[in-house]
Formats: sequence, C-alpha cells, structure tokens
Amino acid sequence: MNAVVQALQEALGADSVRVDPDVTATYSRDMMPLAPVGQPLAVVFPENAEQVQAVVRICAGAGVPIVPRGAGSGLSGAANAIDGCVMLVTTRMNAILEIDQDNRLAVVEPGVVNLDLRDAVEKHGLFYPPDPSSYDWCSIGGNLSTNAGGLCCVKYGVTTDSVLGLEVVLADGSLLKTGRRTVKGVAGYDLTKLFIGSEGTLGVITKAVLALRPLPQAPATLVAAFSTTAAAGVAVTNIVRSGTVPSLMEIMDAVSIKAVEQHLKTEVGPPGCEALLLCQSDSGGEVARLELEKVELACQAAGADMTYVTTDLAEGRMLLTARRAVLTALEVYGAWLTDDVCVPRTAIADLIAGCQTISERHRVKIAVVGHAGDGNMHPTLVYDPADADEFARARIAFDEILELGLGLGGTVTGEHGIGKIKREWLAREIGPVGLAVHRSIKQALDPGNLFNPGSMFAME
Amino acid sequence: MNAVVQALQEALGADSVRVDPDVTATYSRDMMPLAPVGQPLAVVFPENAEQVQAVVRICAGAGVPIVPRGAGSGLSGAANAIDGCVMLVTTRMNAILEIDQDNRLAVVEPGVVNLDLRDAVEKHGLFYPPDPSSYDWCSIGGNLSTNAGGLCCVKYGVTTDSVLGLEVVLADGSLLKTGRRTVKGVAGYDLTKLFIGSEGTLGVITKAVLALRPLPQAPATLVAAFSTTAAAGVAVTNIVRSGTVPSLMEIMDAVSIKAVEQHLKTEVGPPGCEALLLCQSDSGGEVARLELEKVELACQAAGADMTYVTTDLAEGRMLLTARRAVLTALEVYGAWLTDDVCVPRTAIADLIAGCQTISERHRVKIAVVGHAGDGNMHPTLVYDPADADEFARARIAFDEILELGLGLGGTVTGEHGIGKIKREWLAREIGPVGLAVHRSIKQALDPGNLFNPGSMFAME
Repeated sequence: MNAVVQALQEALGADSVRVDPDVTATYSRDMMPLAPVGQPLAVVFPENAEQVQAVVRICAGAGVPIVPRGAGSGLSGAANAIDGCVMLVTTRMNAILEIDQDNRLAVVEPGVVNLDLRDAVEKHGLFYPPDPSSYDWCSIGGNLSTNAGGLCCVKYGVTTDSVLGLEVVLADGSLLKTGRRTVKGVAGYDLTKLFIGSEGTLGVITKAVLALRPLPQAPATLVAAFSTTAAAGVAVTNIVRSGTVPSLMEIMDAVSIKAVEQHLKTEVGPPGCEALLLCQSDSGGEVARLELEKVELACQAAGADMTYVTTDLAEGRMLLTARRAVLTALEVYGAWLTDDVCVPRTAIADLIAGCQTISERHRVKIAVVGHAGDGNMHPTLVYDPADADEFARARIAFDEILELGLGLGGTVTGEHGIGKIKREWLAREIGPVGLAVHRSIKQALDPGNLFNPGSMFAME
Repeated sequence: MNAVVQALQEALGADSVRVDPDVTATYSRDMMPLAPVGQPLAVVFPENAEQVQAVVRICAGAGVPIVPRGAGSGLSGAANAIDGCVMLVTTRMNAILEIDQDNRLAVVEPGVVNLDLRDAVEKHGLFYPPDPSSYDWCSIGGNLSTNAGGLCCVKYGVTTDSVLGLEVVLADGSLLKTGRRTVKGVAGYDLTKLFIGSEGTLGVITKAVLALRPLPQAPATLVAAFSTTAAAGVAVTNIVRSGTVPSLMEIMDAVSIKAVEQHLKTEVGPPGCEALLLCQSDSGGEVARLELEKVELACQAAGADMTYVTTDLAEGRMLLTARRAVLTALEVYGAWLTDDVCVPRTAIADLIAGCQTISERHRVKIAVVGHAGDGNMHPTLVYDPADADEFARARIAFDEILELGLGLGGTVTGEHGIGKIKREWLAREIGPVGLAVHRSIKQALDPGNLFNPGSMFAME
C-alpha cells in the first residue's frame, strides 16, 4: 500500500480514507463539465480540525497535493481532482456548534448544508442570507471557499458579508483563527475575507463564525413582462434610480422564457414577451406594498406590457417557478453549461443582446437568466454532449461571453469562481501586477503549493 | 541637501516636498496622545498616482521608510512619523472623479474629505454610509486604511462594506488595481479587503471605487433612560431580539451623562438616570414609527424610566447633541484618551460595570459611550496632562480596559485600529499563528519593510 495512504489510514481510520476507484471517481469532480479532472490518490473524510491537521502534515511531508472539497456543487472545477492528489472532503464535519440568538451569530463546521443552517437558525427567528441555487445540497465550506452568492445578494450581499471569523488549517498544519465574534473589529489584516473566495488554495476552513440577520417577512412578489430586452434593462435602471432595494430581482430573456413555457406547458408571459423581471420585497405588509408599487411604476415607465403583484405566498412561489425551472427546461435541448459574468447594472440589456449575437454566430442556443439586481448574469449554453463540433462551438461561445462581459466593464465571474476553467481569464482581468500579488500571497501562505495547486492561477 | 529630499523635489516639485520643522511637526502625529512620535525626514504632498509611485521608488531605493497619512484624525498613532521617514500626505489628491448614479458608485481619490463625498453623492439621491465621528474632516484614504466605522455601522456596516475596488501603489512602485466596478465579483483573492484596514503597511491607496446606497429618509429618534446600566444592557438585547435594526443605537453611561449635563447646563435624563440609549430609524414615515415603537417596547420591557420618540428632525438632532458633546464635555476635567473595544452585544453592561471598577481602582475618571448596536464601546479616560502620576494611571487603566474587552469575548479595537499603541495587544488577540500569517503577508507584499514599519506589528 502507498505509504501516504497508510499514514492517512493510521491517522484517520480506514473508514475515512478511501482509494476504491468508484469512490475516488465520485469525489473527483464538481458540476462544471468544461473543467479538467485528474485521478486522486485517495479521498479522505476527516471528522474534526485535528484530523484535517494530520492530513495536511502527512501530505505536506510527502509532497502530495490536497484538493479541499465540500458537497461538489461548484461550477468552476475548483474542487476537481488533480492527478495524485488527496481529495479532502469536509462533509463529515457537519455540526452546527452554536446559535447565539442575542448576538445574532452561528458557529458551524464546513460540512453543514446551507439549507440545514437556514432551517436551524429560522427556528430562532434568524436568517442566514447567502442562497446559491444549490442551497439544498451545497455546503457552507464550499460557499465560503467560493464566496457564494445567490438570489439574496441584491439586498443582503454575498457570503463574505455574513462571516465574522474562521478557523483554518494552514499548509504547515497549524491552526489559524481569523476574525472574531463581535460585529465590528479591525485588529490586524482582514484575513477572514482573504480566505473567503480563495477556492481552497490557501488552507482548509474547519470552522466559521457567521453573522445572522433578523428573519425577514414573507415576500411579496412582482412580475413584469417586456416586449424588448432593452425595455427590461431600462426598468432595472429605473428601479435602481427609485431607491428601492428589492430582496430579489431576477431577469429571464426570450430563450429562457420559451424553454420554460415548453417545459411547463404553460405561458409565463404575454404574447411577444421578450424579457421578464421578477422582484420580491421581504419588508412585510404596507412597506412591501409600497416598495413593489415603486418597482411597478419603474417597470411601467420603461414600457412594461404587463405587471402583476401578489402578496400571496403560494402564488409568489409559483411565479418564481419559471425562474427556477430554467436549467431543467434547457435540458430538453441537451446539456447545459452556465456562464457567470457580472456587469454594471446599466449594461444588462447590452449583455443579453451580445449573447444573442454570439448565439447566432456559433449556432449554439444561449439562454440568459440572472440576478438583475446586481448585474450577475448567467448566460447558459445548450449543447448536445454527443456532438463534438457543437461542444467545441459552445466552448468558444462560453469564452466570447467572458470577453463580452469584460468589455462591458464587468468581471469574468460574479459568484461561481475561477477554479480550473477561467485561469487565463483571471490573469486577463487582473493583469500582471494583480497576478504577481496573488502569487506572492500564495507563496507566503502555502510555499510548498500544497493546496489545490494550479487552480485559480499557476505559480509560474 | 539630503539626496533623497533632492530626488523627491525633482520628482514632485519643491512646493510638494517640505522639510521645515514646523511643517514636519504638524504632519508627524495623529490624535492619539499615547503613541510614540518620530522625526520625519520630509513631508511630501503628491498630486497623483504617478507622483506616489515616484516617491515610493525613491524611498525604496534609498531604504527610507514611508508613513502614509490622510487628514491625521486617527486615534491609534498609525499615521505617526517614525524617525527618518517620509510622511506621504494624500490630502492634495482630493478629487471626486466620478459619481455613477445608475450603478450607485463613486470613484474618488484618497484625500477626499468624508463629508465632501457625503454631500456630493447626496445631490444624486445617494448615500455613503461610513461616518466616523471626525467625518467633517477625516479623509476617505484614512477611512480605508483603518476600515473606519461610525454611528451608521449598526445598519450599514463599516468602510470595507462600501468598497468595490482600489488602486494601490505597491512597494516596488507598481500600480495594483483590485476589485471591480460591479456589485459582485469573485475573480481571485479579495485583495480589496486585504488592503482595507491594513493601516498603510502594505501600500498607498491612490483611488477607490465606492458602493453607494439610496439616500435614507430623515431619521426619527428615540431616547430611553435607565436607572441602571444593567437595564440598558437588557434593552439592547431586547432590541436585537425584536428583529429591529435601527440606523443608529448609541449608549451613554452615568459618567458621560453627568459630564454632558454640566457642560450643556441642562438635564439630559430624568433624576437617577444611569444610562441613556439613543436610537434612530431612517426607514421613513410609518415604517420608522413602527420600528421605534418596537424599540420603545423593548426598552420599557427592560425597565426604562423614560422613553421619548420624535419624528421632528431638529428635535432629534438636539437629542443627539448629548451624545456628540461627550468628548467636549469631558475636556472640562482634563485631557481625554479614548479606548475602542468591541464586545458581543450581550456584554455591553458588563463592560460598563468593569470600567467603573477600573476607574475606582486607578482613581481615573472613565466615561463610557459607544455604539450599542454593534457592541463597539469607547470608554474614555480623563486625565490631567500636567499630572504625570495620573497620566501613568490612565495608561494602566487604558490597558486594563483592553484586557476586560478581550475577557468578554471582544476585540481590542472595533474601529480605531492597532497603529503604534496596541501592537502587543494585537499579538495577544490573534496569537502566534495569526501573527506569523501577518508577517508572511507583509513580507510578501513589502519585503523591504518600506511602508509604516513597526506599526500594527513588528517584523520580528
């Protein structure tokens, strides 16, 4: 038996170190089909920080790279295996250690599923905002490592905005505590936010102190239909100008709408509808009514063909069904591949128009859905996995969308991350000085390039 | 003439490089009387990023340290000179370069005064939340370097929560751009938030992209008086439990109240009042009324002797006068020295009680005021600057308050920073692993220890 595997088994127990090909295959990739996948040496399931430290020390001593992994819901290949690595899976570290109602915080292990945390804190009248689409199975550790977003961001920010402190195992096996349990604090560098979004390249998060909010009210919902994408874009600008901050603000383009209508076998917009805006207010009662009234006026001023508001919870959920069904609906046409550009809010309509052009140029269907409230768009390409030529064209279109996003003053990733698919794009977005700083920080914290090497950026 | 001064004058012009003792003295310290002050070689006033780069290259080449400085309103000595340094003053870089209403952002140079930015964006119906007490003269660059807070934090967070991107001159003179202009973005490490709060030890910020919010409504104000500090503490917990998030929530202890009453020659609370809570809601109209109604009930449930609510703007401002007058009022007794611990919100009453004990033990007056909504307390010591023994006792009390804060699960600095007065306390709060990580990051980004050496932590 491999000496490293043997040492890992001695440290963690045989049950926590797996080398069987079916297990290693299961844990070797996330949800992004474009990313390269290697062959792990082993998959380990540590149960506490001490076991993570043991794994790190053994691997560091043997020069075996470690790829940290949560639930595997990622969309950038960040948690994909590289050849000969140890996959460090955090799913067994899934305890909610503490919920402190009066200081509005929770202390959790990284393997806690996002939805489980949401449910647990809700019982105390509290709210953990970050809600990536995979919230019913993704883990907090993965959310932290990718600085995950979701539908909540327009009002409540991204993961980093809900974290007070971390516990992290570093490359030398030492245990770092960052941040604090207090709401404010400026003692030293903000290491907490440095580790958040570092995609497993700087250490392994073993604990997090999360800031919670008061539980919002049940949402009121508005849907608005537009006969042009440009009009929907104007509506977004009008809403921003109105000073209203909805708790959700999503956009669907014509391709998404059509796919969903075919899938659900029902109309989701009036005839000729080219774009839908979905907004919610969770401010409750009269306030929600007033907020959505402003949103409705902003949509009407932009030329909406139809607006509809409901305070009925079930009806609101039904209206959101269309948005949530997009990816499933697209599967009728083939496999999907979702992009993740974020552009200034004023450039949303331009981004959708640009995607239409790219779609026509490469004969690939592109449906654009996204978080209109913060400009984070998910143009989603559909391709036939059996058709190599179409897959190649989808790949080119995927990259052209990144180019388009950058050209509109945006970023190549709003919430999914760089991982193993956008390394060259990171270099392009941040430039040589930015890349040099990334390398120097990686070198400082992980001089042996132990953690997720080659992900996000290469060391030379 | 010194060769470095000559090179600086050639690069910036003689008017921008000053060595006269009255000028160097003026720019050699901030507002914290405890911090050591050195003798600068020169004070430079660059007018743009290129001039900052020139200064950095000249100083790096000559091994002359650089201490970046904004308006000098700091309270930790972070911007205090060290012997032989060049003070790099950013006040001439004070242009508001852009206000983008539809994407709710502003692009500014570091020398812009906080209040000037607030006023400028308000004309566009927008709001820049961070509001340190010195907001009418402190500069955005200093706010960024210290991750400044203020009264707004309970609802709107601290400086780092309002920054999308930075431009920074690094130790090798290169220009780094961090972050982006979009609301969301996860491309690479969060370098923006690493530089924010780094107190001038990692680079010189030359530009910032700031996120703005819709302008809130005129505030409604509540004041509540309590006959014990403990009751005020319970009120804070009740308010947190009620799910209300006021836009301001300040606490004053008995010593503060008495000082202000003597200073303003008026009663600010009913007889026997030992603690005052001041809360505001900026949600407007009916919503503000409902929010403050909840706050009022929470105060009454905690045994408030008096509560009073007003929606009158002038009256609200008058009620806040007491809070704002505390430091001035204390000057009647001598010079003041303000501490800056942040504790869990449930520990506020314990902190105030602990400060009373420390006050008695060392025969030093301590008035506690603070941001009750986030637990960030400012116990303020009063001493006679001419009385060396009293100053020595105040110093001991200052440290014991930090000890007390840490013991209550807090941090030694909520918003003022470590600077040149709390270095040992930083080491104590973050421990040896944390300190090693700080040193490795400093070494990675500033290998020559050029920027503000010895501030925040020592390299060995």
